[in-house]
Amino acid sequence: MDVSIIGSGNVATHLAKALKSAGFNILQIASSTEENAKTLASQVDAGFLTNIDNLKAVDVLFIAVKDDAIAGLLPQLNNFKGIVVHTSGATPLDVFKPYVKRYGVFYPLQTFSKQVEVDFRKVPLCIEGGSKEIVDSLMSIANKLSNNVKEISSLDRKQLHLAAVFTCNFTNHLFSVGSDILEKGGLPFDMLIPLIEQTVEKIKHSKPKDVQTGPAIRGDETIINGHLELLKERPDLQEMYVFLSKSIKKMHSV
Amino acid sequence: MDVSIIGSGNVATHLAKALKSAGFNILQIASSTEENAKTLASQVDAGFLTNIDNLKAVDVLFIAVKDDAIAGLLPQLNNFKGIVVHTSGATPLDVFKPYVKRYGVFYPLQTFSKQVEVDFRKVPLCIEGGSKEIVDSLMSIANKLSNNVKEISSLDRKQLHLAAVFTCNFTNHLFSVGSDILEKGGLPFDMLIPLIEQTVEKIKHSKPKDVQTGPAIRGDETIINGHLELLKERPDLQEMYVFLSKSIKKMHSV
Repeated sequence: MDVSIIGSGNVATHLAKALKSAGFNILQIASSTEENAKTLASQVDAGFLTNIDNLKAVDVLFIAVKDDAIAGLLPQLNNFKGIVVHTSGATPLDVFKPYVKRYGVFYPLQTFSKQVEVDFRKVPLCIEGGSKEIVDSLMSIANKLSNNVKEISSLDRKQLHLAAVFTCNFTNHLFSVGSDILEKGGLPFDMLIPLIEQTVEKIKHSKPKDVQTGPAIRGDETIINGHLELLKERPDLQEMYVFLSKSIKKMHSV
Repeated sequence: MDVSIIGSGNVATHLAKALKSAGFNILQIASSTEENAKTLASQVDAGFLTNIDNLKAVDVLFIAVKDDAIAGLLPQLNNFKGIVVHTSGATPLDVFKPYVKRYGVFYPLQTFSKQVEVDFRKVPLCIEGGSKEIVDSLMSIANKLSNNVKEISSLDRKQLHLAAVFTCNFTNHLFSVGSDILEKGGLPFDMLIPLIEQTVEKIKHSKPKDVQTGPAIRGDETIINGHLELLKERPDLQEMYVFLSKSIKKMHSV
């Protein structure tokens, strides 16, 4: 089966490698940045191009670009032969309707960085399609890449994406804050890794709400005030500490 | 070597089991709640009591109670034979000075729940002592329990504890928020587990700041507005979303 990919960023890179490993023939990588297109194309034995008007017919064309760039590409794809899918959590299926006949969504619910390996077989793939036949085709492709494939509506996908922002993007930001605090104290961030791993281990077996710990849920004002005192030169972090502590107290006071 | 423990909560329970496994003789478990003292004592072949005036002499007495209860116990321990240590991240070493001759700190930098197993050998143990001899004794005990033992000052311990609140307590709260959002949409929280695991995997190899992803750092206002629209019936979560997105933008705009 022949596929092509528009995009050469984090998602495009991991998706291309996963497709290649699963035996798909990647015909072309298209990217407005020629250098990036070339780099990724060379890793998966594909051709590369910068003008999507020159894309050849394939069974499935994956669009893996920033959300707000998707709609802008579609007018150029209205004669495209094959299924056109995007890989976005937040963009509805409807985006394709005015432009493309056969379309779908192929959303990997994962955070990707080019330099960090991902076991793609564990990545939840959220599939949606413009018709039953398209859903079936995409599910069959997805099942070759991952053991965790689900048909998910646009609204549910949006909810998942929103929840992912809280649990992944915002969480990573808290890791950055913790790392900042330790760096200023000359302490190594990796001392926190076992704690962070255990925090995740717990929620595999329990509802996160049921395993909340810390001074806020205990109402330990002495510790809270001590922490705010430590942060006296970082009013922005003081504010965050107070904000999140209040939110914890609110969630747990029935 | 004989030890006893005041406390029967999460820290006391995991510490008692780790000490027992490492071959220490746990003489007594003291807790104001007789039932809890009894339960833990039976798990580690110890005696139990509710009145700490009746504690027998041991080499080390571990105090594993809420931070704000530590100081209140010390007047009763001023004739205690042996080293008295607390296990708190936020309480300074000085708390002992007016009351106890030989004292120290034995702080496990980990989150504990009675029902969740912990590999204690990976728990960072932060040691502090009132004298060189006490530090040596505590380091030697700690090294029998964990492969990750460090001598840490009271101020550094407080910084670590503060960073742990951000990276563990606040992070778990974000998991709770994500879980709430999915629950209301009838979606299973475990779809987010691979994403959460990968978020942690990344920061083992990179600075959290360097692997930040998501709509806030990309400045993707279309997605941000879509998410705020989804949260229109949860003004508290809208506020949190805006607050944390601003904080991400601030940290990354230099």
